[in-house]
Amino acid sequence: MVDILHKAGIKSSSLDDVYKALTTCEGLSAWWSDTQGENKVGGTLQFRFGPRGGFDMKVLDLQPAKRVLWQVVDGPPEWIGTKISFDLKQEGDWIIILFKHQGWKEPVEFMHHCSTKWAVFLLSLKSLLETGKGVPYPNDIKLDSWE
Amino acid sequence: MVDILHKAGIKSSSLDDVYKALTTCEGLSAWWSDTQGENKVGGTLQFRFGPRGGFDMKVLDLQPAKRVLWQVVDGPPEWIGTKISFDLKQEGDWIIILFKHQGWKEPVEFMHHCSTKWAVFLLSLKSLLETGKGVPYPNDIKLDSWE
Repeated sequence: MVDILHKAGIKSSSLDDVYKALTTCEGLSAWWSDTQGENKVGGTLQFRFGPRGGFDMKVLDLQPAKRVLWQVVDGPPEWIGTKISFDLKQEGDWIIILFKHQGWKEPVEFMHHCSTKWAVFLLSLKSLLETGKGVPYPNDIKLDSWE
Repeated sequence: MVDILHKAGIKSSSLDDVYKALTTCEGLSAWWSDTQGENKVGGTLQFRFGPRGGFDMKVLDLQPAKRVLWQVVDGPPEWIGTKISFDLKQEGDWIIILFKHQGWKEPVEFMHHCSTKWAVFLLSLKSLLETGKGVPYPNDIKLDSWE
């Protein structure tokens, strides 16, 4: 089992703002991609990327201003069963997000791609919270022929 | 042992150009940070980040237009002994870089940070090769209070 890990610091003092960007369909759509569904524990979220399809995630844990945990229930086979978490903490002027996408069976090329894409979208989340403007899908950042 | 993985596609048909950006001090300085040393197998490279110090890497393998492998011999304790590789291949209009930073002992918070930073610098490499201009250190992309 191999994991994708990232860390992003947001210049902000509002853990609530960061948590909202991770737990409302409006927030998620503003930095990642079109999001619909039920943002509550046990609910399912649908993330869609136009013709590329997308992912369905079950919400496993929500701790306000602290933690978000999803599990992929539909999408690319490599993603199904994997878990995605965001852990938040305040450190001085920064809100730190520790991100994990855990439970990949193999370090396939698609995992390399997704690791870099997660960094791009976490920078979009940072931008949304620091400047009011994210760069969600579809954006101009084409990493390769896969998107 | 845990690894950082990334993938970046460069819109280019010159594997040689990509290889040069990874194997000359001028190229490395243009997308990552100030680089000096001997770019040959068995040689040591010094990467420096101003007051932050840097890393020394021994060059373990160089395969023109195909592969670069370094091992960290000095720098932050978490980095020492880890290996960094770039594998190149042409796929249609793209040159694909598969990047690995392997051999971390533990998935510490610093590893999360470095994973996201590697993505930022690989996007800088992509920009250098596609537009002629990279965004090496020091750039404006502050991920957190660590840099």
